[in-house]
Amino acid sequence: MKKLTLALAMALAMTGLAQAKTVKVTLTAKEVDLPIDNKGTMYRAWTFDGQIPGTVVRVTEGDTVEFTLVNDKSSKNSHSVDFHAARTDLVKDFESIKPGETKTYTFNATHPGTFFYHCGSDPMIQHIARGMFGVIIVDPKDGNALPKADREYVLVQSELYPNPDNQNDMMANKWSNVMFNGGVFKYDPVHDPAATRILQAKPGERVRIHFVNAGVNEFSSFHPIAGIWDRVYPGGNPKNVMHGLQSYTVGPGDGAAFDIISPVEGANALVSHVMRQALTGAIAVLQFTKDADPKAGKGDNILVK
Amino acid sequence: MKKLTLALAMALAMTGLAQAKTVKVTLTAKEVDLPIDNKGTMYRAWTFDGQIPGTVVRVTEGDTVEFTLVNDKSSKNSHSVDFHAARTDLVKDFESIKPGETKTYTFNATHPGTFFYHCGSDPMIQHIARGMFGVIIVDPKDGNALPKADREYVLVQSELYPNPDNQNDMMANKWSNVMFNGGVFKYDPVHDPAATRILQAKPGERVRIHFVNAGVNEFSSFHPIAGIWDRVYPGGNPKNVMHGLQSYTVGPGDGAAFDIISPVEGANALVSHVMRQALTGAIAVLQFTKDADPKAGKGDNILVK
Amino acid sequence: MKKLTLALAMALAMTGLAQAKTVKVTLTAKEVDLPIDNKGTMYRAWTFDGQIPGTVVRVTEGDTVEFTLVNDKSSKNSHSVDFHAARTDLVKDFESIKPGETKTYTFNATHPGTFFYHCGSDPMIQHIARGMFGVIIVDPKDGNALPKADREYVLVQSELYPNPDNQNDMMANKWSNVMFNGGVFKYDPVHDPAATRILQAKPGERVRIHFVNAGVNEFSSFHPIAGIWDRVYPGGNPKNVMHGLQSYTVGPGDGAAFDIISPVEGANALVSHVMRQALTGAIAVLQFTKDADPKAGKGDNILVK
Repeated sequence: MKKLTLALAMALAMTGLAQAKTVKVTLTAKEVDLPIDNKGTMYRAWTFDGQIPGTVVRVTEGDTVEFTLVNDKSSKNSHSVDFHAARTDLVKDFESIKPGETKTYTFNATHPGTFFYHCGSDPMIQHIARGMFGVIIVDPKDGNALPKADREYVLVQSELYPNPDNQNDMMANKWSNVMFNGGVFKYDPVHDPAATRILQAKPGERVRIHFVNAGVNEFSSFHPIAGIWDRVYPGGNPKNVMHGLQSYTVGPGDGAAFDIISPVEGANALVSHVMRQALTGAIAVLQFTKDADPKAGKGDNILVK
Repeated sequence: MKKLTLALAMALAMTGLAQAKTVKVTLTAKEVDLPIDNKGTMYRAWTFDGQIPGTVVRVTEGDTVEFTLVNDKSSKNSHSVDFHAARTDLVKDFESIKPGETKTYTFNATHPGTFFYHCGSDPMIQHIARGMFGVIIVDPKDGNALPKADREYVLVQSELYPNPDNQNDMMANKWSNVMFNGGVFKYDPVHDPAATRILQAKPGERVRIHFVNAGVNEFSSFHPIAGIWDRVYPGGNPKNVMHGLQSYTVGPGDGAAFDIISPVEGANALVSHVMRQALTGAIAVLQFTKDADPKAGKGDNILVK
Repeated sequence: MKKLTLALAMALAMTGLAQAKTVKVTLTAKEVDLPIDNKGTMYRAWTFDGQIPGTVVRVTEGDTVEFTLVNDKSSKNSHSVDFHAARTDLVKDFESIKPGETKTYTFNATHPGTFFYHCGSDPMIQHIARGMFGVIIVDPKDGNALPKADREYVLVQSELYPNPDNQNDMMANKWSNVMFNGGVFKYDPVHDPAATRILQAKPGERVRIHFVNAGVNEFSSFHPIAGIWDRVYPGGNPKNVMHGLQSYTVGPGDGAAFDIISPVEGANALVSHVMRQALTGAIAVLQFTKDADPKAGKGDNILVK
């Protein structure tokens, strides 16, 4: 971009194409106790920035990401970051750093999409299962490549292994619950009256779910109860578009963008239609109401905390 | 459609576009004993209309469906219907009704496709696993949107949990068999000499399989042995077309349309290529023969009973 | 093709379309002891041509394949071949033959793609799980249908059942490891220092992975660590193209072509992102280096032995 002339820059601006920029991103690996259900049951989690999922990273196709990982000095383990949006050398950039250390690497976000990021340190299955994951959204540089979303939400599916120190349970797929955004029935007051949070939008609005399946082992069959996906974008890439789907399979370590529009007021529920996943926690109510909070599903509120 | 003028109606008729209409559909929830294999082993099933899968519902894109659920007075449980073809309020329309009660709701079939329907009453995993599911086909309003099928068959995959009262087995994924249309090797005389039914067509005919995976937990890798899917339509939507596939993954709670044409006489076998699913029952013979019954795979015979 | 006139042949040659030909292919069923890891642990395998996977078969769309199966006289079991690239009569062509017997059948490779082949003899789950599988690549007749690949590799995923005589373990999905090309961490010196082989290419080259999931039971979520799939072709068919994917689900009995280009020198690692599959063996290092062996990933070297 350094040789971009002013004339070209102006021309680009007129076409609506975003200009590539450099974005500084920092994530801090933190080992903390977090509630993993609406009752407040605590879990010894390993996280980015002390939350599950980690901070949502959002850049635009073509941007250069100057990334810094800080492994908090209070950590007891080495950690690392594997961005699925990066094309690089895994040995050099995805290496682990010790508690108190810092590491920086740079990559170009060449592909638009909804990408997973996660810790890749040994044993990787444990680092992910304990909560070291998040989403990086790379918006298309062409602002018109996707239909404009009125609201957006980030949902990350993952399994809960009750004893986080027991890697064998993870290797044996012995999970107790499947969660969205690190909580059992986190957004589902129907199945858990203690739930206080839901997703919301107005009828007629286009709602885009940036969905990632962190796994570590289970496939998701992502479905909106009482709704139909208007569009599904595998990988979140505008070039991959599917129409009018009831469900779409998202494997562990994969992501996609799901658009939904409700013609009426009322409740939909986003689930993995794998019944034993849904009924142990993988349900999120999406309420369509004319009274939807105007700030919900926008800006920093695309991840409902 | 009420304001449709005669001139517009005539113009539509000339283009081959179907006119939207109102279709009345009734399903009756019945708890009955049904054979679940070719030997006649009985199973305490919960069903729609006393059969697994329930009655095939078929409408055209744009139609209004006036749906009535009757919960038979002989039932011991509450039941409901969740149509994947409907965009509505799940609380209002998918609610459960008690034995002897009736409920009506209306939805517009806005999206063409091969959709799942099922009971959504608690515990949903048990209501589906016991047999409360079926298929609603929404034909595209443009009669030319899909290549014309010479024959069509409905196949629904599901798992058999031997003790239907034991919900824990369902949550633990402890199935004994995987079935098509509610029977172990129902259409497979090769693996079960007691089987008396198969699917059939003539060489050169386009055969469309409306496939739904009811689950409750397993993903299907749907494949035609000795054949290749000419086209696969994820969700059954004409806009989603894939060519020349050997297999396609259909998650639980999902559906798709699969077209196959055989250049020769002989047998194909439709299977889930997950071996332990196929070899416990998920195989259906599709025989291509010049002597195929002219009525097979047409009208009411798309579901082979 | 016999009536093809010289003029038409010349015209075809000028368009770059391949002319259909007859290709003779022979596979020999052999029951042998093979190493299934880098330490040399021996396993009583059943194979095609004494190797896992069997010899790669490569033809061009439109070719007639004259196939001969030899069941070696040293075998103790009957065997057969089920080519996913064939549209035929399974009873006639996929039948089993006894040790010492030979069988021939002919099929037309009508569809381009990356197809599975495997033994279909009873019990099929055991014949596949013991190693009787391979890949048949049907190149498009239009040489420009796919972007030109600079290097190609064949990778087949499968599960290892430690006791190959125990079919019950296979039906119960009790595998110990997941392998690429019949070896635990076969191409991964990072996780197993005894590994001596990797995949390699130069930065900027288009590398095409012909990927098949032999199963017998597990789905794969195929992902390049530190890379992004430039293109994914479900089924390997040029008409099915997806862009910029991080992962793609490939069910058992399915195949696809995955293109990757690295802008830099360094290591990627191809994995199933199902963590317990990856961490038991389903990882292959793909090293991008200017010093890549010019012969690697070309001709007979697309299967790294």
